[in-house]
Amino acid sequence: MYKLILDAMGGDNAPQAILDGAVAALQEYSDIFIYLVGKQEVIQEHLAGKSYDASRVEIVDAREEIEMAEPPVKAVRTKKDASMVVGMQMAAEGKGDAFITAGSTGAAVAGGTLIVRRAPGVLRPALAPVLPSAKGGVLLIDCGANVDCKPAFLQQFAIMGSIYMRTVMGVENPRVGLINNGAEEEKGNSLTKEAYQLLKESTIHFVGNAEGRDILSGQFDVVVCDGFVGNVLMKFMEGCASFLFGKIKEELLSSTRTKIGAALAKPAFSSLKKQLDYTEYGGALLLGTNAGVIKAHGSSNAKAVKSAIGQAREFARLGIVEKIKQELAEAAQETENE
Amino acid sequence: MYKLILDAMGGDNAPQAILDGAVAALQEYSDIFIYLVGKQEVIQEHLAGKSYDASRVEIVDAREEIEMAEPPVKAVRTKKDASMVVGMQMAAEGKGDAFITAGSTGAAVAGGTLIVRRAPGVLRPALAPVLPSAKGGVLLIDCGANVDCKPAFLQQFAIMGSIYMRTVMGVENPRVGLINNGAEEEKGNSLTKEAYQLLKESTIHFVGNAEGRDILSGQFDVVVCDGFVGNVLMKFMEGCASFLFGKIKEELLSSTRTKIGAALAKPAFSSLKKQLDYTEYGGALLLGTNAGVIKAHGSSNAKAVKSAIGQAREFARLGIVEKIKQELAEAAQETENE
Repeated sequence: MYKLILDAMGGDNAPQAILDGAVAALQEYSDIFIYLVGKQEVIQEHLAGKSYDASRVEIVDAREEIEMAEPPVKAVRTKKDASMVVGMQMAAEGKGDAFITAGSTGAAVAGGTLIVRRAPGVLRPALAPVLPSAKGGVLLIDCGANVDCKPAFLQQFAIMGSIYMRTVMGVENPRVGLINNGAEEEKGNSLTKEAYQLLKESTIHFVGNAEGRDILSGQFDVVVCDGFVGNVLMKFMEGCASFLFGKIKEELLSSTRTKIGAALAKPAFSSLKKQLDYTEYGGALLLGTNAGVIKAHGSSNAKAVKSAIGQAREFARLGIVEKIKQELAEAAQETENE
Repeated sequence: MYKLILDAMGGDNAPQAILDGAVAALQEYSDIFIYLVGKQEVIQEHLAGKSYDASRVEIVDAREEIEMAEPPVKAVRTKKDASMVVGMQMAAEGKGDAFITAGSTGAAVAGGTLIVRRAPGVLRPALAPVLPSAKGGVLLIDCGANVDCKPAFLQQFAIMGSIYMRTVMGVENPRVGLINNGAEEEKGNSLTKEAYQLLKESTIHFVGNAEGRDILSGQFDVVVCDGFVGNVLMKFMEGCASFLFGKIKEELLSSTRTKIGAALAKPAFSSLKKQLDYTEYGGALLLGTNAGVIKAHGSSNAKAVKSAIGQAREFARLGIVEKIKQELAEAAQETENE
């Protein structure tokens, strides 16, 4: 039985969507047990009349909530009875294999680092979403946990990202790219120039620099960068898509002919929208902590929550935390032996 | 008469597209004089039979060329007779108001810095393209000249970018955003946190942080970042567009209905493609050097070259170099008086 801890109060559609997602996950997976963390009476009220195996659910009362706009470190430190803090505390104590929240990203990262804490051998935990790419998906690591990085952090991000893509996503020999301002080895800022050398010496499948235009091309399974660059890129992708779809819409509505064309082409756009839909991709992982931390999109609906729970189950089932500890220790050993 | 210096040999379609663009520009603007720099006999051969005012053209012989893949600094230092080096040398000596090239970006930046040199008071020249946005365009500065930056560089980028958008693009009070990993003032890495404070104290119209999703939203006229982030973002925009258009095409071809829809909707897509077309936007500016340096897209056709020449003329006509010197001196004065 995989024990998962779910923040019932985090996210734009909490608690309804979170609890519906939990019920759907309990129905699909018979090998999971879920701790639902949040206001007990609210959770009970929402679960009333729903059909699920109650022996695999336990409600853990937590009276506070962390708001999206709160300074995350302060919130995590002071709101001891927040659902996110209580849930993370349980994960830190080994009561569950993974913690899932659709709440504030900043608080999830702060809580992951301060409460669940980094696993032995990990320099910095990193946040990693799987972005859609021309061929399947590409893991972007770090996308916001560490805005200032040292080269050795990036090397570990590459190792952790490779483990995830290989183990959970089934990519045989994940191709790792270093996000950089040019394809050639000598390109880069002071951080990426040094990181390039470390990646070259690593046991991962490092294929070189990834320029901005290559990130989604399908040439890479993992792309590595500091959390500042990753955060800006991830949000810029959203911005580009929204800009382009806005322009397409504007153009399609500009004449009767194109309006008819748009109506006929609609199924194609719906299908594309579905492909780009975060609900299909689950959450971003915080890799490198003592238990799995999965950050679902803030506007997750029940389907997205169920998908993040499935991801947490995979995380636990495949022993990602242990694998990361082990491979980082091996990598450190190799460096020592050189 | 505005004296412009054109690298006739740089770019994927040189010299044909460059010279056709020059001829078109000479026909449109009666107040420009163009030095065409490159292999004399090649230029003469391509100009033969074309109709233009020959009294406003002078060919300057240069026997070498800088290739796209060459390490830029080395190329600029050793190939003394390259068209780019000869042209920039002329700009440095005051023989022309602006230099235009569709050659290697790296070499244009290296040459701009090492040969044309930075104008008095400028800490670092910065490369700045105008990207399309939901409302008009947005100047991204720096997009690759300085991969490692200090906060004071970003402050100057903001000032130079504001001058350009105000003077050349006619934006009354350009709204400046700092590209950052969050909207709140306290967000950022060590660079942007300090830069935020400097921007707040500047006389420009600083409206706060620009998250990735806001860059193209039309909320900003100038967005400021270091050259590493800017380079990755600019190329990522290309990558996102190509990814999305690829997906749209794939979906549109998936059924007969959507194929017919696509055929009818085609004018809309053509019009959009035109809007996104770099040939409409001219080149990226290198701001902060002793003469204007305009870097046209490597795959520029004649129309794009003509557009970049028009941009160079505006640059000269409006005295951007002088304006930058003056406003940076004023900003320095203010800081001193505090």
